[in-house]
Amino acid sequence: MSKITFIGAGSTVFAKNVLGDVMLTPALAGFELALFDIDAERLRDSEQLLNNIRETSGSNCTIRAYSDRKEALRGAKYVINAIQVGGYDPCTITDFEIPKKYGLRQTIADTIGIGGIFRNLRTIPVMLDFAKDIQEVCPDAWFLNYTNPMAVLTNVMTSVGGVKTVGLCHSVQVCVPHLFDSLGMEFAGVETKIAGINHMAWLLEAKKDGVDLYPEIKRRAIEKQKEKHHDMVRFELMLRFGYYVTESSEHNAEYHPYFIKRNYPELIDRFNIPLDEYPRRCIEQIKGWQSMRESLLANRNLEHQRSHEYASYMMEAMETNKPFKIGGNVLNTGLITNLPKEACVEVPCLVDASGVTPTYVGDLPPQLAALNRTNINTQLLTIEAAVTGKREHIYHAALLDPHTSAELSIDDIVAMCDDLIEAHGSWLPAYK
Amino acid sequence: MSKITFIGAGSTVFAKNVLGDVMLTPALAGFELALFDIDAERLRDSEQLLNNIRETSGSNCTIRAYSDRKEALRGAKYVINAIQVGGYDPCTITDFEIPKKYGLRQTIADTIGIGGIFRNLRTIPVMLDFAKDIQEVCPDAWFLNYTNPMAVLTNVMTSVGGVKTVGLCHSVQVCVPHLFDSLGMEFAGVETKIAGINHMAWLLEAKKDGVDLYPEIKRRAIEKQKEKHHDMVRFELMLRFGYYVTESSEHNAEYHPYFIKRNYPELIDRFNIPLDEYPRRCIEQIKGWQSMRESLLANRNLEHQRSHEYASYMMEAMETNKPFKIGGNVLNTGLITNLPKEACVEVPCLVDASGVTPTYVGDLPPQLAALNRTNINTQLLTIEAAVTGKREHIYHAALLDPHTSAELSIDDIVAMCDDLIEAHGSWLPAYK
Amino acid sequence: MSKITFIGAGSTVFAKNVLGDVMLTPALAGFELALFDIDAERLRDSEQLLNNIRETSGSNCTIRAYSDRKEALRGAKYVINAIQVGGYDPCTITDFEIPKKYGLRQTIADTIGIGGIFRNLRTIPVMLDFAKDIQEVCPDAWFLNYTNPMAVLTNVMTSVGGVKTVGLCHSVQVCVPHLFDSLGMEFAGVETKIAGINHMAWLLEAKKDGVDLYPEIKRRAIEKQKEKHHDMVRFELMLRFGYYVTESSEHNAEYHPYFIKRNYPELIDRFNIPLDEYPRRCIEQIKGWQSMRESLLANRNLEHQRSHEYASYMMEAMETNKPFKIGGNVLNTGLITNLPKEACVEVPCLVDASGVTPTYVGDLPPQLAALNRTNINTQLLTIEAAVTGKREHIYHAALLDPHTSAELSIDDIVAMCDDLIEAHGSWLPAYK
Amino acid sequence: MSKITFIGAGSTVFAKNVLGDVMLTPALAGFELALFDIDAERLRDSEQLLNNIRETSGSNCTIRAYSDRKEALRGAKYVINAIQVGGYDPCTITDFEIPKKYGLRQTIADTIGIGGIFRNLRTIPVMLDFAKDIQEVCPDAWFLNYTNPMAVLTNVMTSVGGVKTVGLCHSVQVCVPHLFDSLGMEFAGVETKIAGINHMAWLLEAKKDGVDLYPEIKRRAIEKQKEKHHDMVRFELMLRFGYYVTESSEHNAEYHPYFIKRNYPELIDRFNIPLDEYPRRCIEQIKGWQSMRESLLANRNLEHQRSHEYASYMMEAMETNKPFKIGGNVLNTGLITNLPKEACVEVPCLVDASGVTPTYVGDLPPQLAALNRTNINTQLLTIEAAVTGKREHIYHAALLDPHTSAELSIDDIVAMCDDLIEAHGSWLPAYK
Repeated sequence: MSKITFIGAGSTVFAKNVLGDVMLTPALAGFELALFDIDAERLRDSEQLLNNIRETSGSNCTIRAYSDRKEALRGAKYVINAIQVGGYDPCTITDFEIPKKYGLRQTIADTIGIGGIFRNLRTIPVMLDFAKDIQEVCPDAWFLNYTNPMAVLTNVMTSVGGVKTVGLCHSVQVCVPHLFDSLGMEFAGVETKIAGINHMAWLLEAKKDGVDLYPEIKRRAIEKQKEKHHDMVRFELMLRFGYYVTESSEHNAEYHPYFIKRNYPELIDRFNIPLDEYPRRCIEQIKGWQSMRESLLANRNLEHQRSHEYASYMMEAMETNKPFKIGGNVLNTGLITNLPKEACVEVPCLVDASGVTPTYVGDLPPQLAALNRTNINTQLLTIEAAVTGKREHIYHAALLDPHTSAELSIDDIVAMCDDLIEAHGSWLPAYK
Repeated sequence: MSKITFIGAGSTVFAKNVLGDVMLTPALAGFELALFDIDAERLRDSEQLLNNIRETSGSNCTIRAYSDRKEALRGAKYVINAIQVGGYDPCTITDFEIPKKYGLRQTIADTIGIGGIFRNLRTIPVMLDFAKDIQEVCPDAWFLNYTNPMAVLTNVMTSVGGVKTVGLCHSVQVCVPHLFDSLGMEFAGVETKIAGINHMAWLLEAKKDGVDLYPEIKRRAIEKQKEKHHDMVRFELMLRFGYYVTESSEHNAEYHPYFIKRNYPELIDRFNIPLDEYPRRCIEQIKGWQSMRESLLANRNLEHQRSHEYASYMMEAMETNKPFKIGGNVLNTGLITNLPKEACVEVPCLVDASGVTPTYVGDLPPQLAALNRTNINTQLLTIEAAVTGKREHIYHAALLDPHTSAELSIDDIVAMCDDLIEAHGSWLPAYK
Repeated sequence: MSKITFIGAGSTVFAKNVLGDVMLTPALAGFELALFDIDAERLRDSEQLLNNIRETSGSNCTIRAYSDRKEALRGAKYVINAIQVGGYDPCTITDFEIPKKYGLRQTIADTIGIGGIFRNLRTIPVMLDFAKDIQEVCPDAWFLNYTNPMAVLTNVMTSVGGVKTVGLCHSVQVCVPHLFDSLGMEFAGVETKIAGINHMAWLLEAKKDGVDLYPEIKRRAIEKQKEKHHDMVRFELMLRFGYYVTESSEHNAEYHPYFIKRNYPELIDRFNIPLDEYPRRCIEQIKGWQSMRESLLANRNLEHQRSHEYASYMMEAMETNKPFKIGGNVLNTGLITNLPKEACVEVPCLVDASGVTPTYVGDLPPQLAALNRTNINTQLLTIEAAVTGKREHIYHAALLDPHTSAELSIDDIVAMCDDLIEAHGSWLPAYK
Repeated sequence: MSKITFIGAGSTVFAKNVLGDVMLTPALAGFELALFDIDAERLRDSEQLLNNIRETSGSNCTIRAYSDRKEALRGAKYVINAIQVGGYDPCTITDFEIPKKYGLRQTIADTIGIGGIFRNLRTIPVMLDFAKDIQEVCPDAWFLNYTNPMAVLTNVMTSVGGVKTVGLCHSVQVCVPHLFDSLGMEFAGVETKIAGINHMAWLLEAKKDGVDLYPEIKRRAIEKQKEKHHDMVRFELMLRFGYYVTESSEHNAEYHPYFIKRNYPELIDRFNIPLDEYPRRCIEQIKGWQSMRESLLANRNLEHQRSHEYASYMMEAMETNKPFKIGGNVLNTGLITNLPKEACVEVPCLVDASGVTPTYVGDLPPQLAALNRTNINTQLLTIEAAVTGKREHIYHAALLDPHTSAELSIDDIVAMCDDLIEAHGSWLPAYK
């Protein structure tokens, strides 16, 4: 059973990175790389591109595109998931435009918030279909989830789907080098400890030779905040709550009730908050892909350097039993002792031949646990909605969202949810 | 050790009710009723009034006023606490007026919210002084706490003070009869189950002969909401979240971000929200007491009927070993399984000769747990501030408050906290 | 749905006590008392006898015997269970005689130990059949279980059967009066606290007017132990481990490895241990019933005084909402914090219109928790055997039993289990 | 603070292995290796021998012997503990000879059992003295404990001493290669998962290419048991309970009530159990050291190959942040969910710059949890005795020991404890 299945393989660049990495990993030599996507054209693009890399890298992996999902999954040892349900058009447009009519502005809308709730609601049923297939044709496979909203989807795949799942996000890997870089500090040799929930995990420790670096980090951060820059929300959060957060300013701006406020319109400029950032990125990405596509596909000499994506390193660790440490998203089986046991948490995990094993964290500082809980509230109610099929829980999820509830009245929140449900049409199952 | 100590005995009417009840309870015959207050005049008033009742009731209890707190506590079997620190003037005025300058309006301000935070901060050190005395002179005493903010103070007395404490609030007792009465429904024979946190506990069940009464309650509530009345916030919460809450509309208006919103000023009228209600009540109460005082004290024939206050029934149950059931506030030792273990929860408790023993509740419906968590966040950070003496945790408590954070920016919240700390002067210990 | 179903109603004397009590309880007036037993003759006896009491007591309850179990259960509000599977002959005989061949002696064999294991194994499938019926025809019924082995059967009915179950045992009620009586001490006004597991729960507190009575109890116990009496094992346990245990000496003799020891045959006499006590009692009871039967059934003027059995008081409390406190057996949902969460524990429970609600106990003294765990080990492995159908877990249950493992070698234990399985024949389901 | 302190450095061979390893580890270049022992002569031996290795290895570490323990610890980054309190003569002799008078035979007596209890009782106070020093002069140091009894001492250092402790035992490392070797199976490429308590942890998984190797292991084990060999107890345990245990047959023989039984004297021969094994080893070791000493110390060209001891690899991982996986002993903070939370468990741990972080295990198979609990009972009561200073808890610890309680009566157990306490004299603190 030496097979890696990539669902959503039409994400050509991401598939190239992850499966290109695989082809450069000796421990994964000879694996079948099974590609699946509902978009047949993009699937063909990825297949062709990966075959090009296969040639240049001299890999002996087999690359095979499937039109039948269950066949793609059959016998897989690892499943990589990078789907997006509903796409930029129509669903992301809906996620942004309807709330905007109610005066509710967003930046990314892929985590919590009103956009995150609906992104979850349309993705969960699709993922649970995967879970059913996996239970049938590859029940022992490890499911590496890259699809957002990470916390809710990973939670559902594990607790409802019964699949061995870990959720993977770049934010854990890149946040600390980014922080040090932006402050002109040397990152080499720094020891860090990160835990919390996806996109709102916390840099709990940053030490060099046993010395706490936070005082110096904060001193420089105070200086940096005196001028405009692109990470102002995150620095503000650190200076107010004491710890750096894993996800960027444009994300965190909408996870809290503090930044996008109709009562304080000046904060948008002051904290340099890019409203409607995600749709802009989508449009650029779509354009970018159109121009990039031909050159990529045409390049028979396409080379690939092993990237920093966790996936190939994890599969390597599982094959070789050499331990690898990741920040992974898993169910909170008593790992973070002051977050709800039902939540999905992002904690250090050990990867080796035993699979992905989460480590114990203990209590977070109380203010960080409190901030996490405000987001977990919405996550758990979104799951409740998806699992029970009850519309009232969609309202509850939105009503508990810190940003939505700060900005809108109950009536407006409920009306906005109704509008979003209607606009989604068949992208959502029926709610009673 | 047959002694009941009443701290804050200058609350003459409340002392009259509780200790008048005691004198009418045969199982408590012969007890010494020890009165303590820092206001010598009001202490004397209470002593005189209770002596009058003693005469008319023929009680053989001893009534004794103490000027030394530790002597009042020495050897007590039960301690009843009904203190208020800082009073209407200056502290309640401060709690309302400074936030108002920032545009933050409140109704009662004695639970959470910015007013609740500061009420806690000035009361905790006083209570922990009591705890030290109790450890020294009556370590086995049961401490019946009636002082607000209930959840935080009861938590601190138990977890930090190490005193056998239960927090008691009328809301659990009165909310259900009030609900049924207001809807024209018959209360007799109704079985109810209530659990959550103080002032935001939930009527989880209301059944008669095994039949769920909620459908009928909600049908009538929808009708009632069509006209203005005095419990509109609570009904709105029930219709949106599915369950009736124990505390009144004027309280719940400020526990959530939904009702007092600068963005939606019309909600004040629509939900009939009495802003600044508590200061108004204080002024009336002070006036009322001045006019009531003379007639009460002069009345040598003052009679007392046993009230519905829990205290005398609880002490009776502890003396007689006949079980009595209360809704009490206790540490969450796994009782409500989806609220933080560090929180103080309000759950059914069994009272008998073994003392006050909380019962197991399990999971709350997820939307109710989520609402509770938003308030527990502020409670736990308030305790963190009081225990560590760190000013930053005061900011955190305010920043996590759902109403405060919905209305104000971070800068305004911090500035408001600084103003409140300064205005409190020596009513607060030094924060670093 | 005013119906009380009694399963095992052929236990005529016990049915008379419990249902006689019911007929004397005003709050239960008008209930149907549904009788079921697989022994048609004894069922008829019970029906006749209860009809006699009905006449003399003037009760307006309906008494009805059913030959169809599901019909007996249909619509029940309360179910009382007092079955015995396999009876004295053949099963109790088997439970005692086969172990005796291996040199393993027992006294009662209805709790743990090799006899308790097999009593559980033959009863669990029958009880789970009840559970299926209850789920179908009276899913909201409270199941009051009086059948032994209490801990395992109550555990299984709750965790596997999904039935609202509480296990009831006389030992909690009678142990303390018995103790005080046997030591010549006055019981009135004594406050006690009992928790642990069934038949091995502990008198954690015995106080009068706040004074710990244990020093006096132990002083007298030391005196009493100087002469032979009928509770020597229990006193020895108290003097060695510090606390009195709920079940009698003849029971506890076989729960521990300390008393029935081939290496120390003199202990039988020294601690006055009645080996083979239960079979003797069975024979006497059978004889006794034969002589009692005619006089009971013939007596048209049979009167009944309300007994101290919990059942009628519990149903009264549930009907009237007046709280009643019991020691009940329930799943350990964090109630006793140093016993396994999978165990069934015996703790104070509050009974009222909300049903049976267990209270929080916390940690037991460590030596008591340790003793309980040795018995819980066998209980949990017995459940594992019954639920998985794996024979190896039967061996594990026996191998973990403190008395069995102290006396026999592994080979003998396994051979003895095999013999017992074979001797049971169709009284057990097939094990793989 | 680049200092490694070795307490008990007079264990010359072990110090040579661990600190020799350190000198061969580039990441630990330049560290001070601080040696401490209460035996000045052996300390000098170790110092000389390590200096010899230093020369031959070209290490730039500093080696320094201290006569003052606190100075040895001052500023340490890592502390390695390998002390033995009371030695072979008199304490080990006492541990074996006094029980033998009561007919209680032992093999190793360094884990639980009556010997393990007393070894703990004399070691705990010494270790808690270390803890006090560490709190004062190197509070951030990691304490790598190699001293037995591992579970109890590691527990106490963490929970009472407040020191960052991990307990390390060879058994986890060597048991699986040993198993495969003894069955003629190839170990390379086998993935294993081990968890439980020290000396009784379980090989939960043994897989190669996803295939469960247990069926083949058991098939071969059944064959092997047909002839005498040196691991018969362990194989019997595996065949009866389903899983291989980490510690050897001579150890496990005394952890259970199944093997050393006066009722079944033939089991000693049948399972090839080496009674009194540990004293024999001690005598040989003492003799061996006397003959080895001169040649070792005289050898100026002494070379050292890096051994498989965890210590140098762990410190390397902490210095370099390259993850290393160990089986370590830590407090059970919810890691093994069906063992008591107060216990010390042996679980996979991740070691890197964040220190030693335990991973989550979940439930053990119920029979394994049950076996572990029987030993944890004695461990927790031993700690209770040491912490409270109450003699009764020493009795409890012995009374709960499965082997002791199977073999002896209560009277004999208590008398034996009294004899052992007396024989220990000033090796134990006073018990009340």
